[in-house]
Amino acid sequence: MKKVEDYIKSIPDFPKEGIIFRDVTSVLESPEGFALAMDAMNKELEGLDYDCIAGIESRGFIFGAGIAYMNKKGFIPVRKKGKLPRETVEMGYDLEYGQAVIEMHKDSIKPGDKVVLIDDLIATGGTVEAAAKLVEQLGGEVVKMVFLIELVDLKARNLLTKYDIASVVKYEGE
Amino acid sequence: MKKVEDYIKSIPDFPKEGIIFRDVTSVLESPEGFALAMDAMNKELEGLDYDCIAGIESRGFIFGAGIAYMNKKGFIPVRKKGKLPRETVEMGYDLEYGQAVIEMHKDSIKPGDKVVLIDDLIATGGTVEAAAKLVEQLGGEVVKMVFLIELVDLKARNLLTKYDIASVVKYEGE
Repeated sequence: MKKVEDYIKSIPDFPKEGIIFRDVTSVLESPEGFALAMDAMNKELEGLDYDCIAGIESRGFIFGAGIAYMNKKGFIPVRKKGKLPRETVEMGYDLEYGQAVIEMHKDSIKPGDKVVLIDDLIATGGTVEAAAKLVEQLGGEVVKMVFLIELVDLKARNLLTKYDIASVVKYEGE
Repeated sequence: MKKVEDYIKSIPDFPKEGIIFRDVTSVLESPEGFALAMDAMNKELEGLDYDCIAGIESRGFIFGAGIAYMNKKGFIPVRKKGKLPRETVEMGYDLEYGQAVIEMHKDSIKPGDKVVLIDDLIATGGTVEAAAKLVEQLGGEVVKMVFLIELVDLKARNLLTKYDIASVVKYEGE
């Protein structure tokens, strides 16, 4: 029986030399692979008390929205700057080269809301840290972060010590 | 009992003057609104024979991926240029000002595949037409297009006469 990692394609030198890109589209494109990934991520929420799921644009939308729907929760999109039409809060974060800014609607989280953050992959953790700060700025609490893939060598867990982090597939030492 | 349209927020003059932006984030953020939207879109697929769902970046990911998962189908992301790591096909299309290009992985559709295209909203239909052309270029057949919202006055159906189009909420004459 195939495991979810068997569906992940590794693309050398994308988007640039020296990087091995872990491609989840090959997981999604397979009914079996996609079901394995969604079920494994959803399993991390079993028994957890939470109010909503926030997914990070745009591959976090693919996993987060479906998991929110199956658990009868609302889905909060965390978007790149300029995409959300109502009043937002924003947070900048560092990329390998340069900076980026993400936003959430100001009324998307109510004070006291317990929020699960979902994305396809965690590398250095910069993006999800920015998303967590936005949730907290709005008075919410990040009760879990769930990823399909974790690039262990980039040590996001050292940055995000105060959060409960779960990942389904871990890549290490390559 | 509330209907899905009760959850859609209409934002005047976004992204620019004279446009009424139909905001689906207020649908997603509500567990009830999101479930109503997903269930209504999914109902359009009842009895339909199809192989996979393609969703258009990025709000099409939110609806399309979950619907693919619940029907045990694969999900094919149709992305903006430069985001997909493997070999792609691409198609340009006109925006109100300027042009855009979308891409699909070359191996994401097999010849003969019956494909459902999903997005949050259909306006002029330019984006989904480009996506349909990509599916056809890869040898697939677009068996249905499903949207949460249709802006009827922009007459996408006149452009897309050869396709089966379904939308849950229609805005007309405003």
